[in-house]
Amino acid sequence: MTQDTICALATPPGGAIAVVRVSGPEAVSITDSIFSKSIKDVEGYTLHFGQIMDMDGKELDEVLVSVFRAPHSYTGEDSAEISCHGSSYIVQSLLESLIWGGARQAEPGEFTMRAFMNGKLDLSQAEAVADLISSSSQATHQMAMSQMRGQFSQELKDLQAQLLHLTSLLELELDFNDQDVEFADREKLSNLMDKIEKHIKGLADSFQVGNAIKNGVPVAIIGAPNVGKSTLLNALVGEDRAIVSNIQGTTRDLIEDTTQIGGITFRFIDTAGIRSTQNKLERMGIERSIQAAEKAKIILFMTESNQPFPELKDFREDQIVLQVINKCDLSLPSSSYLYHRQPEGRLYHISAANGDGLDLLREALVKEASLPTNLDTTHSVVTNVRHYNALNQALKALRRAKKSFAAQTPTDLVAEDLRGCLHHLGEITGSEITSEDVLQNIFRNFCVGK
Amino acid sequence: MTQDTICALATPPGGAIAVVRVSGPEAVSITDSIFSKSIKDVEGYTLHFGQIMDMDGKELDEVLVSVFRAPHSYTGEDSAEISCHGSSYIVQSLLESLIWGGARQAEPGEFTMRAFMNGKLDLSQAEAVADLISSSSQATHQMAMSQMRGQFSQELKDLQAQLLHLTSLLELELDFNDQDVEFADREKLSNLMDKIEKHIKGLADSFQVGNAIKNGVPVAIIGAPNVGKSTLLNALVGEDRAIVSNIQGTTRDLIEDTTQIGGITFRFIDTAGIRSTQNKLERMGIERSIQAAEKAKIILFMTESNQPFPELKDFREDQIVLQVINKCDLSLPSSSYLYHRQPEGRLYHISAANGDGLDLLREALVKEASLPTNLDTTHSVVTNVRHYNALNQALKALRRAKKSFAAQTPTDLVAEDLRGCLHHLGEITGSEITSEDVLQNIFRNFCVGK
Repeated sequence: MTQDTICALATPPGGAIAVVRVSGPEAVSITDSIFSKSIKDVEGYTLHFGQIMDMDGKELDEVLVSVFRAPHSYTGEDSAEISCHGSSYIVQSLLESLIWGGARQAEPGEFTMRAFMNGKLDLSQAEAVADLISSSSQATHQMAMSQMRGQFSQELKDLQAQLLHLTSLLELELDFNDQDVEFADREKLSNLMDKIEKHIKGLADSFQVGNAIKNGVPVAIIGAPNVGKSTLLNALVGEDRAIVSNIQGTTRDLIEDTTQIGGITFRFIDTAGIRSTQNKLERMGIERSIQAAEKAKIILFMTESNQPFPELKDFREDQIVLQVINKCDLSLPSSSYLYHRQPEGRLYHISAANGDGLDLLREALVKEASLPTNLDTTHSVVTNVRHYNALNQALKALRRAKKSFAAQTPTDLVAEDLRGCLHHLGEITGSEITSEDVLQNIFRNFCVGK
Repeated sequence: MTQDTICALATPPGGAIAVVRVSGPEAVSITDSIFSKSIKDVEGYTLHFGQIMDMDGKELDEVLVSVFRAPHSYTGEDSAEISCHGSSYIVQSLLESLIWGGARQAEPGEFTMRAFMNGKLDLSQAEAVADLISSSSQATHQMAMSQMRGQFSQELKDLQAQLLHLTSLLELELDFNDQDVEFADREKLSNLMDKIEKHIKGLADSFQVGNAIKNGVPVAIIGAPNVGKSTLLNALVGEDRAIVSNIQGTTRDLIEDTTQIGGITFRFIDTAGIRSTQNKLERMGIERSIQAAEKAKIILFMTESNQPFPELKDFREDQIVLQVINKCDLSLPSSSYLYHRQPEGRLYHISAANGDGLDLLREALVKEASLPTNLDTTHSVVTNVRHYNALNQALKALRRAKKSFAAQTPTDLVAEDLRGCLHHLGEITGSEITSEDVLQNIFRNFCVGK
């Protein structure tokens, strides 16, 4: 595939060192044209120290240039990495020089997209690169690492092979259909379909865990104005994230912050206090609170200790509601309230202001999140919503095939659904032809320079 | 010198790629101990792709390792640079692994300090590295580059050689003093001292320009409350930097922002409106306004067009005061005020809100800043306040020497002052023994990883 040569800063602005990446057929010669040493004909995996020039031929910086030769590079193309001083002026001028020399500024994710195009990674591995970069906990790192190393891709390949085998058995039957011969053992075929279904369903089901690990378990803090929701958020995340005042309605925007408790990432959402009000801005805030509560897995429903406990709102069946009574330090004898828990075990007396009772609340959160704190890496965990959707499509197609097969529908219809199932699995790794639109959508969310 | 091995992240957090630096006698062997390939005995300037392990021996990431061997490295020591994915988890675990292996976290600037200790750079060159990294305009980049490449150091060396020559001539005279012989030609010696003095003075004087180029020309915007000072700041820097409202006293903190006009960096300082008030917070703000005005080179003294022009405050002789009349769009016929300039040329009618008259004001700022827009790089420009102070000390010592010499004071006293002058010049490059405190002070302002 003929490609142009792209360049981009691969490190964030600022800092001591900046790394500029160049990739494409002209990567080495363009870099050579602004470098004090001749690197046009050097081998891959070599390192060169010298001066780099700006567009006017003035010395811009002392740099280290790493040269890589196709296919032994990240992108699979000829590449250079220029490690210079992290000055905004130098980086800007260096990119200008490279663009002047014939390169163009890379789009977000374009280096990884080229790695995919050149067969260095499949699509799910490429997506794992972005996850790896954004991973901030051991669990997210493990999931991304295993996906990048191809464990998930291998599972999908195995499934595809089984489906292909199944399809060919069925199609064999189809070819001889008019002779009323049944080559395939129907029960064996049925068992094979069950097995594949179970495997795909297992992968799809892992998304709930994977998504919670990756994005954090959503916990909404809701309640009447001024019960101390923002104070609780700040206490749980350990910093002054939300503005706290004793003025009702201080919080208008939803404020989110994640923190790790017992190895699990929680995403706490502080909401506007819910009450009837004529203030339009506040009403908009309350609207958002209600939406946030709908999406949360766990709800911290707050009141204060000297207030009557409010009637529970309508929460979803699968939502866990922990009733939290705040400001216990202000009104209850401090000796008694700390360990006072209702029999149903979902009533927590705390003081968000001085931290009393928060440990019990944290314990409860970890328990209710019911996520593995140490990830089993022998099975793939799906963390990507695109993969999840494709798995569900594959599952639907397979179930249609099973139903038709059980109803003794003509074999060609069954085979068509099985091919549909194969198609959806192939979308995940990109082994099926993937449209430009889909690719652009995937790589758009990468950072520039990756 | 026996040193321990240090490590640090050299790129800012975030981004696609992170670079971790390791330097010291054990740099390569510690990196080797957590790397999938054996690099213990590889040569310098080689590049290695492989897997890096965390403290538990689990695969952490796929990385590129560059190996450098003493003295051919930035620090002059054995070094490794590990280029990994820019995930906070990976970087954190990688640093933990290196520290577990025997390295320690580097202090800010410690890599460059080692480069200085190992004679790779002198002190003024080392300081230029920090300037280079923070340079954001062509002029600051040029100054830092020339200093890093040693132009300033060379000038100082020449001066030191001349001073040494002078001192030895004088001391020769001293040895034979009791014989009443005058070896040195007194006029020649005097001319030499004049020449050196002129050179040192030139360098010291360049600081005014160098400092203004580096830090921007300070321009204070002062005036009564609500005349539109913040609106003018925003208009000049081209963004909503300061909060604007029609409430008097909106700006309390000093708000600074730099912008380039005609190739010159200006540092605009928006101040609290000056008036008598009982509000303690506002009074503190006004206090700061007055201090800011004292430090500014140019003062934009603002009023509004329908107000009587206020009496000028006491400004320093060397301060340039531009009187700015704002809100001209509200009260004057728009056809007449735009080009209306007082004969003295220091009265500017503008509308900060719609931009009228700002071009003339910008022109005036560039003219009054009287800085070279294109830097003459054949002479060094001093940009560092430490260097400036040392040059002034050197100048003082030299002038004492000159005075004594003219007064026919005993030659040994003259020579002592000349040695004092030499000492102060040596402080700049660190060729004189530099105390640990001074070094730490210098390198503390570096970023970690440099």
